[in-house]
Amino acid sequence: MDKLILYIACSLDGYIADATCGIGFLEETPGPVPDTGFEQFYDSVGSLIMGNTTYRQVGELADTWPYEGKPCYVYSRRETGQNGQVAFTSLSPAALLEELRSEHGGAIWLVGGGEIVQLFLAENLIDEYYIYLMPDLLGDGLPLFPAGFPKTKLSLQSVQAIGQIVEVVYHKKTK
Amino acid sequence: MDKLILYIACSLDGYIADATCGIGFLEETPGPVPDTGFEQFYDSVGSLIMGNTTYRQVGELADTWPYEGKPCYVYSRRETGQNGQVAFTSLSPAALLEELRSEHGGAIWLVGGGEIVQLFLAENLIDEYYIYLMPDLLGDGLPLFPAGFPKTKLSLQSVQAIGQIVEVVYHKKTK
Repeated sequence: MDKLILYIACSLDGYIADATCGIGFLEETPGPVPDTGFEQFYDSVGSLIMGNTTYRQVGELADTWPYEGKPCYVYSRRETGQNGQVAFTSLSPAALLEELRSEHGGAIWLVGGGEIVQLFLAENLIDEYYIYLMPDLLGDGLPLFPAGFPKTKLSLQSVQAIGQIVEVVYHKKTK
Repeated sequence: MDKLILYIACSLDGYIADATCGIGFLEETPGPVPDTGFEQFYDSVGSLIMGNTTYRQVGELADTWPYEGKPCYVYSRRETGQNGQVAFTSLSPAALLEELRSEHGGAIWLVGGGEIVQLFLAENLIDEYYIYLMPDLLGDGLPLFPAGFPKTKLSLQSVQAIGQIVEVVYHKKTK
């Protein structure tokens, strides 16, 4: 079964963006940009899921849509229909995953942000967690894991330093 | 100069206790209790700083005071004076550190909780961070890093898996 993978960077205090929605801290680590294996991960991705805030932020940050060639599903309470390869959806997480798994091959990348992570955590639907901890305390911002989902025990797979970044990999706990 | 060290465990989503102040998740990892090097660290400690909530929680959890022989300073807005080796204080963080460094040798352990961490982070007074990430998402609870302090860039020193626990070590960034 194609896996749902949360692949995301956050500050040590758990924010994916600062209090003004800025993500400058993701690029401020000194030295050459470390290779976190994103390209290899991205090659394995068949489709993407993100929230509407993330979708709009990606649009603002990039000149061209960076996920060309991969179907992308954007959760929205207002918008519907299709915008190129982007489909707006309000399906339940389980129903969306069923649709993606039957229509597309490859890993499903849960891009973020926190509200969408919370939505999928509420039903413990995330199979793998690749989290990149930046060496920053932001003191405030948009949390990766907003409060409000059941306790979830994970299984640690690996941990490594990549330059100043810490990569931690967890899998859903099966028992 | 004797270092102020934050040595603490938290869930992957950054909580030091769950929504009912429970810390059962700290003991629920499967297999033998992994050696996180606490004894060696504790031997190097000359004095402790903690908040009043943590102080009361330690008192409830332990039959006898577990930090016998080490001067302990407890932040309190109400209580003053001394209770055995425990001194209540409302000194500014900088003034308390000055007092500890002149009166006691050895590392100063910032035990927690979040409010006290925030107090010392407000002035970037923490020299070293030893954080033990448990393989748990709690979904709610008492945050290790409550919002409300300036952005603080740290310097990653090391990372390792200890059983299912991830140890990350950061130092204050100097430049």
